[in-house]
Amino acid sequence: MNPDIIKERQNATFDVEKLTNILDGGPEKTKRRREIEALVLSDPDFKEEDPNFLSRSERYDQAVRKSAQMILKLREYGIADPEEIYCYKTSVHPDRPEPLDLHLGMFLPTLLNQSTPEQMDRFFMPAWNLEIIGTYAQTEMGHGTHLRGLETTATYDPATQEFVLNSPTVSSIKWWPGGLGKTSNHAIVLAQLYTQGNCHGLHAFIVPIRDMSTHEPLPGIVVGDIGPKFGFNEVDNGFLKLENVRIPRENMLMKYAKVEPDGTYVKPPSAKLTYGTMVFIRSMIVGESARALAKSCTIAIRYSAVRHQSEIRPGEPEPQILDYQTQQYKLFPLLAMAYAFTFVGQYMKQTYHRITGDINQGDFSELPELHALSAGLKAFTTWATNSAIEVCRMSCGGHGYSRSSALPDIYVEFTPTCTYEGENTVMMLQTARYLVKSYRQAKDGQQLSGIVSYLNEAEHRRVQPQPVAARPTVVDINDLASLVEVYKLRAAILVELAAKSIQQELQRRKSQEDAWNNSAIDLVRASDAHCHYVVVKLFTDKLGEIGDTAVHSVLSTLALLYALHGITQNSGDFLQAGLLSVPQVLLISVRIKELLSQLRPNAVVLVDAFDFHDKKLNSVLGRYDGNVYENLFDWARRSPLNSTEVHDSFHKYLKPLRSKL
Amino acid sequence: MNPDIIKERQNATFDVEKLTNILDGGPEKTKRRREIEALVLSDPDFKEEDPNFLSRSERYDQAVRKSAQMILKLREYGIADPEEIYCYKTSVHPDRPEPLDLHLGMFLPTLLNQSTPEQMDRFFMPAWNLEIIGTYAQTEMGHGTHLRGLETTATYDPATQEFVLNSPTVSSIKWWPGGLGKTSNHAIVLAQLYTQGNCHGLHAFIVPIRDMSTHEPLPGIVVGDIGPKFGFNEVDNGFLKLENVRIPRENMLMKYAKVEPDGTYVKPPSAKLTYGTMVFIRSMIVGESARALAKSCTIAIRYSAVRHQSEIRPGEPEPQILDYQTQQYKLFPLLAMAYAFTFVGQYMKQTYHRITGDINQGDFSELPELHALSAGLKAFTTWATNSAIEVCRMSCGGHGYSRSSALPDIYVEFTPTCTYEGENTVMMLQTARYLVKSYRQAKDGQQLSGIVSYLNEAEHRRVQPQPVAARPTVVDINDLASLVEVYKLRAAILVELAAKSIQQELQRRKSQEDAWNNSAIDLVRASDAHCHYVVVKLFTDKLGEIGDTAVHSVLSTLALLYALHGITQNSGDFLQAGLLSVPQVLLISVRIKELLSQLRPNAVVLVDAFDFHDKKLNSVLGRYDGNVYENLFDWARRSPLNSTEVHDSFHKYLKPLRSKL
Repeated sequence: MNPDIIKERQNATFDVEKLTNILDGGPEKTKRRREIEALVLSDPDFKEEDPNFLSRSERYDQAVRKSAQMILKLREYGIADPEEIYCYKTSVHPDRPEPLDLHLGMFLPTLLNQSTPEQMDRFFMPAWNLEIIGTYAQTEMGHGTHLRGLETTATYDPATQEFVLNSPTVSSIKWWPGGLGKTSNHAIVLAQLYTQGNCHGLHAFIVPIRDMSTHEPLPGIVVGDIGPKFGFNEVDNGFLKLENVRIPRENMLMKYAKVEPDGTYVKPPSAKLTYGTMVFIRSMIVGESARALAKSCTIAIRYSAVRHQSEIRPGEPEPQILDYQTQQYKLFPLLAMAYAFTFVGQYMKQTYHRITGDINQGDFSELPELHALSAGLKAFTTWATNSAIEVCRMSCGGHGYSRSSALPDIYVEFTPTCTYEGENTVMMLQTARYLVKSYRQAKDGQQLSGIVSYLNEAEHRRVQPQPVAARPTVVDINDLASLVEVYKLRAAILVELAAKSIQQELQRRKSQEDAWNNSAIDLVRASDAHCHYVVVKLFTDKLGEIGDTAVHSVLSTLALLYALHGITQNSGDFLQAGLLSVPQVLLISVRIKELLSQLRPNAVVLVDAFDFHDKKLNSVLGRYDGNVYENLFDWARRSPLNSTEVHDSFHKYLKPLRSKL
Repeated sequence: MNPDIIKERQNATFDVEKLTNILDGGPEKTKRRREIEALVLSDPDFKEEDPNFLSRSERYDQAVRKSAQMILKLREYGIADPEEIYCYKTSVHPDRPEPLDLHLGMFLPTLLNQSTPEQMDRFFMPAWNLEIIGTYAQTEMGHGTHLRGLETTATYDPATQEFVLNSPTVSSIKWWPGGLGKTSNHAIVLAQLYTQGNCHGLHAFIVPIRDMSTHEPLPGIVVGDIGPKFGFNEVDNGFLKLENVRIPRENMLMKYAKVEPDGTYVKPPSAKLTYGTMVFIRSMIVGESARALAKSCTIAIRYSAVRHQSEIRPGEPEPQILDYQTQQYKLFPLLAMAYAFTFVGQYMKQTYHRITGDINQGDFSELPELHALSAGLKAFTTWATNSAIEVCRMSCGGHGYSRSSALPDIYVEFTPTCTYEGENTVMMLQTARYLVKSYRQAKDGQQLSGIVSYLNEAEHRRVQPQPVAARPTVVDINDLASLVEVYKLRAAILVELAAKSIQQELQRRKSQEDAWNNSAIDLVRASDAHCHYVVVKLFTDKLGEIGDTAVHSVLSTLALLYALHGITQNSGDFLQAGLLSVPQVLLISVRIKELLSQLRPNAVVLVDAFDFHDKKLNSVLGRYDGNVYENLFDWARRSPLNSTEVHDSFHKYLKPLRSKL
């Protein structure tokens, strides 16, 4: 164990295990998580070659091998709870996506939710037993988030009682679905349904794409891998071009909408039913942001505790780089953010489950708010995490660029969350739509409830962006409740600003749609402020649940840092609205420096509390024992380019060059 | 040619070629650049396999092959001007680093600058003819930017008249030098020189590391590749462990400092002489920022002109995504930044050459300012570009994640500039040191000249951070000169704030060093504001040189957007200092929207003006002809995972799994 890191752990002011339990949701959860992790990490069947040393094809091969093992073992151990499966899976493929993700996460659940009993009989057990391996083919080359624009067609032919599927244009080729390129033999294809000459919009069809025995593509199917990407090397994201592919009528998923044998279309009873999955996945992504950020902070902070560099005071030994104010200023606000997002993730999961309960009893009332919140928070947390991972990586100097640090991989595996499951800017605008609608309702005298209820107050208090000097400033910058209040007022003002921008555009005789587009910058800004308020509020609320004094104290410091740092990063908003005075903003900068010093002794243990096993972290820089350099050297020597002392290119090109010059 | 993109080009309000000439530095330069590019791009010897489809070893192999060809052809064509060589090289390896970079860019120049005539005879021609292939081994595993901390030792042994080189610790292993792992047979090693029992600090030694004939590592040399990184796949960044390696006394580069045969150390005449290279490289990086950003903008803006998605007005065809205000707000400020950085890069190059002339005549007076400026601007432009590339990538939705977009590669090849040649935070603090020093000089009554002369005024005008209402606001937000002035005042105020923070710390009886560290956040902020001012100023200055009215008009719009966008992003600073009023900040937001609309018709031609040949851009999304989708499909089908219809893993793992479940 590196002596620096031992010393750090001796300095802790709180019991790390207690904090870990809070993060897991209770001591039993911590225990069970560790049990499952141990099952995987001690299992020789999951031993792997470092993917960084493999070719793309070898990486895919290794991932398929491990996924197949995983399916067997999950059955063997009888692990069936979705959270436990998730925990097992992320230990087998340490936070990397894998080829069967869409089979397990989309194909099977969609069958469960949208199949008729007859379809369940025909498809579910074969899929459960991996005879049928499926994917979910929605996105096309030309369309992603805007689903209505999808072009694939499924035209019903009553003569043969079949659907004929086609990719009518290049841009309609299905593009991106995981596991589509090489792994799957079936796909649930989303296509525009045509019957009796009418288009009825998107519906889902089960399409066999490869021969069950030879795995060769079936006639009319052009399928393959979409080529190398930024990350996702283990996954065969694929393309699918359909050329007059005929499937039986019974392969349309018909639990809700139906096409009768004669081609008559029967509408589904409610459109809201497909809403839930989307909300669920977006809520989950908030938790994934927290995890990616927590891992990055763990690596950067542990490394900063063992790396010594340069000098603060001449003649003294080189200090740990964690002692530099600039390093603390880079990392501690991100550490605070990791905690904030973890608690927001917990809240989203709980809320989702609560509201799902309501929905099952026919109560959809809270769904729109959750939908808006999950969209905005998905964008807010993934954007922030995306930048933060790179700050962590760059805070490790040169070694952050080495694949051995794991930071490049954390980044490339995480960054797609900004785009998939709803492109972030579109997500922010969806939340804004809800906010503006709520604002107008409040203005029309409706009493709002839930998280947007502050828009009621905005009406009453008539917060105005100026004049600055006129507003009395009663904010206590050391009081979280007071800070939640200013974040709330900032959100209220920015929602109002956006709504007024739309109003002004309308007064200039612009259409509703143009007015909306011409206010989009303001709308995104309003959504962002709303989400920021929600995060500060939920972090503060969480403190109320923490019984342990020492843990409460350190988490309060983190929450305060998160709130104050957010203010300095957006000080224009707060000054502009007159919510804070100039002296207060200056004071906040001073206070932040104090908080950095205050957190310094606990920094390493605060990342220890995330409790990432070394094998899951998979980072030479982030090792629990802090023994970075010797392991970096070992890792490099195992790299494939070192398998021979002399690379062929010397004999092929460099040596012959001499005689030519 | 895609009809959308044809239409865009028809809308141009200026002559694209004229702008290209300005960017190149004159019509002759444009002509010559295109000639050189054509030489490479039409040369079948440089045909290559898409690196994205190759393994690491194959990529390195291909790069060595092309570099060897490049050396031959440069001799053949007699291309010898450094700028022309650079242009040729970046066409051979489209903006990718290559294995001979350090041989050409560091090994040969260091020989030229620091060799004695005898050493020139012995080493230069063999190195010129690629018998000796060299690298520059400075960075160690434990030390980067902080050179004094390097641990490698070179101890003089007068008995044999040799130096004995050693890597005394794991952390002293040389780490990162390009071309060290596999390519080089010599290295210039930076080591602490010990003679007659004294350490004389870092000196450079020529160390043979591989056998000239077999290329096997020599005795005492442990050398290899440091393993996979984030980018830089073509380069064998290496490690070098020295175990009692003996080299003749004459292998120390002795043009300046010397060790006599008896071990007597002779000091160099001036320490400033090694300063120049560093300043030069940092100045060049500013230009590289501009180029990386210009490429990213080209790809994102062209793609946004051909991509149609969603709807603004119901019933109408899907709009080009470039018509969305949010998309314009993401991309146009970055386009403006690309122009700004291009002009700053031109300025830095010119200034460097001017000052080099002075230095050759013994006048070092301007060197400290250039040193400070190059450090800060290197950090300012690389950080901004680093984030901007990712914004461009994510603005392309899902396809930005495909390697075919080129955006992932632009990012990973560019991001190391934030760390190498001086870690950015350290660079910002170096600039801050100069600013604080200048501020104190001004306060002591000295009259400052050059770019920091505004610190004189600050003294006079006694700008105070508040009260806000007290300052008359005379800023014209449509006048660039007026905006340069507010940026200048912001910088002056933030320099003063940082200097005062140090002062306060000193008053609290902190040491100079602790006071500095405890003010580091403020110091970085001050540097950042200083650099921002310089960029706005240089962009504005450049406009004065533009004769063509139409070009002048569009560049003025870009400059205004750059300046105003920077204000909204840092509005807290301007409000806090009372430099702008709240209504002005609100007006600026409105004005920015107008500028976005104004730039919209010229967006595509403004990126066309950068004149990146399709083969250099190497991006399916950024193609000049806009034919994105069909080429994306072609590219994917050529991907190695599609060389067989059925991947082996099906037979190895998936099919056998069925019988086990």
